[in-house]
Amino acid sequence: MQQKSGELSISTYHRGLIEVTENISSWLTKSEISEGVLTIFIQHSSASLIIQENADPDVQLDLQDFYSNAAPDNPALYRHTSEGPDDMPSHIRSSLTDVSLTIPVLGGRMRLGTWQGIYIFEHRTSPHTRRLALNVMGE
Amino acid sequence: MQQKSGELSISTYHRGLIEVTENISSWLTKSEISEGVLTIFIQHSSASLIIQENADPDVQLDLQDFYSNAAPDNPALYRHTSEGPDDMPSHIRSSLTDVSLTIPVLGGRMRLGTWQGIYIFEHRTSPHTRRLALNVMGE
Amino acid sequence: MQQKSGELSISTYHRGLIEVTENISSWLTKSEISEGVLTIFIQHSSASLIIQENADPDVQLDLQDFYSNAAPDNPALYRHTSEGPDDMPSHIRSSLTDVSLTIPVLGGRMRLGTWQGIYIFEHRTSPHTRRLALNVMGE
Repeated sequence: MQQKSGELSISTYHRGLIEVTENISSWLTKSEISEGVLTIFIQHSSASLIIQENADPDVQLDLQDFYSNAAPDNPALYRHTSEGPDDMPSHIRSSLTDVSLTIPVLGGRMRLGTWQGIYIFEHRTSPHTRRLALNVMGE
Repeated sequence: MQQKSGELSISTYHRGLIEVTENISSWLTKSEISEGVLTIFIQHSSASLIIQENADPDVQLDLQDFYSNAAPDNPALYRHTSEGPDDMPSHIRSSLTDVSLTIPVLGGRMRLGTWQGIYIFEHRTSPHTRRLALNVMGE
Repeated sequence: MQQKSGELSISTYHRGLIEVTENISSWLTKSEISEGVLTIFIQHSSASLIIQENADPDVQLDLQDFYSNAAPDNPALYRHTSEGPDDMPSHIRSSLTDVSLTIPVLGGRMRLGTWQGIYIFEHRTSPHTRRLALNVMGE
């Protein structure tokens, strides 16, 4: 049994889902671990992780609409407004989705379903650099 | 340290929670790993995982009601309607619950609380076969 | 590769977020594992785990408000009322947040972002003792 630790930095340009499946898949290939578990952890609380269908782009737009309605950019709803009208909604939307993901690995590949893609869900409206802490453990 | 990889296929018949605690517990017993971490990953984005109280069946019905109201089967709300009125709500409900679970193992058993059960949360209205990718690592 | 299993018991006094970052960090230091993955699992379904900003305390109050509105303490909404008006909302709020977290470890420390803290989210109104099952694996 062995492990590899790493990090990915991803630039986001606006609110929305940014697919990172290929970035993570390339990193995993370099680790040379063929069977085990991959852990992905996002080091932020105003962006999050989500695994969703990567076939129809409308799914991503509908997801954004849902979360925009669930936690609207309305400062009247929140105490925490000092970082902008989109910051507190970003924390709420992050708490509803994922900060960490664990994905089993076999044959050197993540065991994702046919239509599953891994996304950073950027909740802020302005560009950010988002860091993912990675670990793969196995053999 | 060693590991075992596996897969479970579970048939679902309609929308709702299907308990899989026993299925996973049996698989874990066969792995002969007594201390470590079990990873459960669902290879779909219109069904999800959830750990909840397994004592009062009303809890599961109330959970279903909550998610039905949060993301209703109303095509007027969504762009993505080509796979049926229940597909986009299924993606949203999946994103609100879990795609992966990690459960510590000790004495050959999952360290679940007294009232905790593991469930597949089927969000589609028609029957499906759902695949869970499993890994247990430890000694 | 080695591992350590453990448990933390945390007293909660009322509904709200209780930071446990230091409790978990101390436990991790004693494990003497410097690189690997930490798993945290809460053995309850009416309290949950959440990683959020630990800078402005208003963020925590706004999070509580959001979840209180999302799943209100209104018995007319639920079948499961035998354990009190706050029990079913607690199950729903737990299902929307996290039962397990996996955090990569490097240099003997959790790879949390600058502003990230780990919290137990107590959803019940009365005091409880909450148990966290822990495992760290690595070297």
